Amino acid sequence: MEKGTLYLIPCPIGDTPPYDVLPERNRAIIGTIDYFIVENIRSARRFLSKAGIGRPIDSLEFVELNEHTPSEAVETLLAPLLAGRDAGIISEAGLPGIADPGADAVRIAHRHGIRVKPLVGPSSLLLALMASGLNGQSFAFNGYLPIKGPERDRAIRMYEKRAVTEHQSQLFIEAPYRNSALFTRLIEVCAAETRLSIAVDLTTPQEWIKTLSIGEWRKKPAPDLNKRPAIFILG
Amino acid sequence: MEKGTLYLIPCPIGDTPPYDVLPERNRAIIGTIDYFIVENIRSARRFLSKAGIGRPIDSLEFVELNEHTPSEAVETLLAPLLAGRDAGIISEAGLPGIADPGADAVRIAHRHGIRVKPLVGPSSLLLALMASGLNGQSFAFNGYLPIKGPERDRAIRMYEKRAVTEHQSQLFIEAPYRNSALFTRLIEVCAAETRLSIAVDLTTPQEWIKTLSIGEWRKKPAPDLNKRPAIFILG
Repeated sequence: MEKGTLYLIPCPIGDTPPYDVLPERNRAIIGTIDYFIVENIRSARRFLSKAGIGRPIDSLEFVELNEHTPSEAVETLLAPLLAGRDAGIISEAGLPGIADPGADAVRIAHRHGIRVKPLVGPSSLLLALMASGLNGQSFAFNGYLPIKGPERDRAIRMYEKRAVTEHQSQLFIEAPYRNSALFTRLIEVCAAETRLSIAVDLTTPQEWIKTLSIGEWRKKPAPDLNKRPAIFILG
Repeated sequence: MEKGTLYLIPCPIGDTPPYDVLPERNRAIIGTIDYFIVENIRSARRFLSKAGIGRPIDSLEFVELNEHTPSEAVETLLAPLLAGRDAGIISEAGLPGIADPGADAVRIAHRHGIRVKPLVGPSSLLLALMASGLNGQSFAFNGYLPIKGPERDRAIRMYEKRAVTEHQSQLFIEAPYRNSALFTRLIEVCAAETRLSIAVDLTTPQEWIKTLSIGEWRKKPAPDLNKRPAIFILG
């Protein structure tokens, strides 16, 4: 029997109409799927209803896959695909599997020879990088920095060193309520000539993107980053 | 006087209808711009005519920005923005400034306080990464490997080491006519348990994506990668 296809379905990253940031073609593809592996059922249902797919949401089947899912359970979630049914992975925001759960399911899908089909959508990481003017020929995304002060400062210095010596742009993120504290550490720890790009509220009307040297950031009032999703890049 | 906005305009990465991979909203935005900074004028014109913008292509102004552009000329290209005119950067395929020219202009725009607005579009790097099942919480894009044998092998070993010890997925690309040679080196140089994902012809009907361990790749016939745009990921 032919196996189903595992579609990777991006979501908007801010509070924007879905087709401001997703190709219309995604709608047609999503509309053919009735089995969804999702990070959170409520928000996946909300996304699908905004996405305006043809069939009633209540006729669709949802299973959750997130940090609480035991890895042996992931295998079970993919069983319908082995029986020929298509499935879609939907994460909370942005691209499934990028700074988000979903990669486990994809890895197991490959092991079973299930076709994986990624759809186009917004990535806050790449929007921030392209808009930063920093090096896009070589870059690394490092996820979250350590929370504790000394380890965090050490991580900042390590990334700054890589940014400078390898000319590799270093991206990272922070829990939004800690953004301002991270900014303070960055401008204290890094050298005046190191460049720092900050992108906030990407794709929304409040979007704000700025690249300055650490020395220039020091001279300005601190930007308002509080509780706003942000990407930080050292370059 | 208010400065213009610098829009970063993604293009399709394969031979697909533009709005299969771009949000419809991009069309409306592109339609308001009459000054384009592009990697190649011919292909930018071709893209814009496929993208179905409202006004005649011949009424638009194009300037080229590519590896032949002296960096002092980039400043001049941005002069219209200082005078209040909007501009769009269009690269050959994918996202401007990511594995592509354009970053210079963006960097200078920030220096002048010009607003930079990135639009959503396809990134072969992130499509490949999300579809690989490899770690999307930490990853690096390294551009092209060195061409010469010994340096290339050394680079492969270095990236493999980072993939394994830092659990950081390592992405790279190759000139399409050298893909098969690179594949041969990868399966010879890397350890059997290292995983290698290959994504070819992304977003096109010929799209092909597979993640296997090096040991598994060795047992299979080599994939057909010749002259097909490909992303390689070690994880």
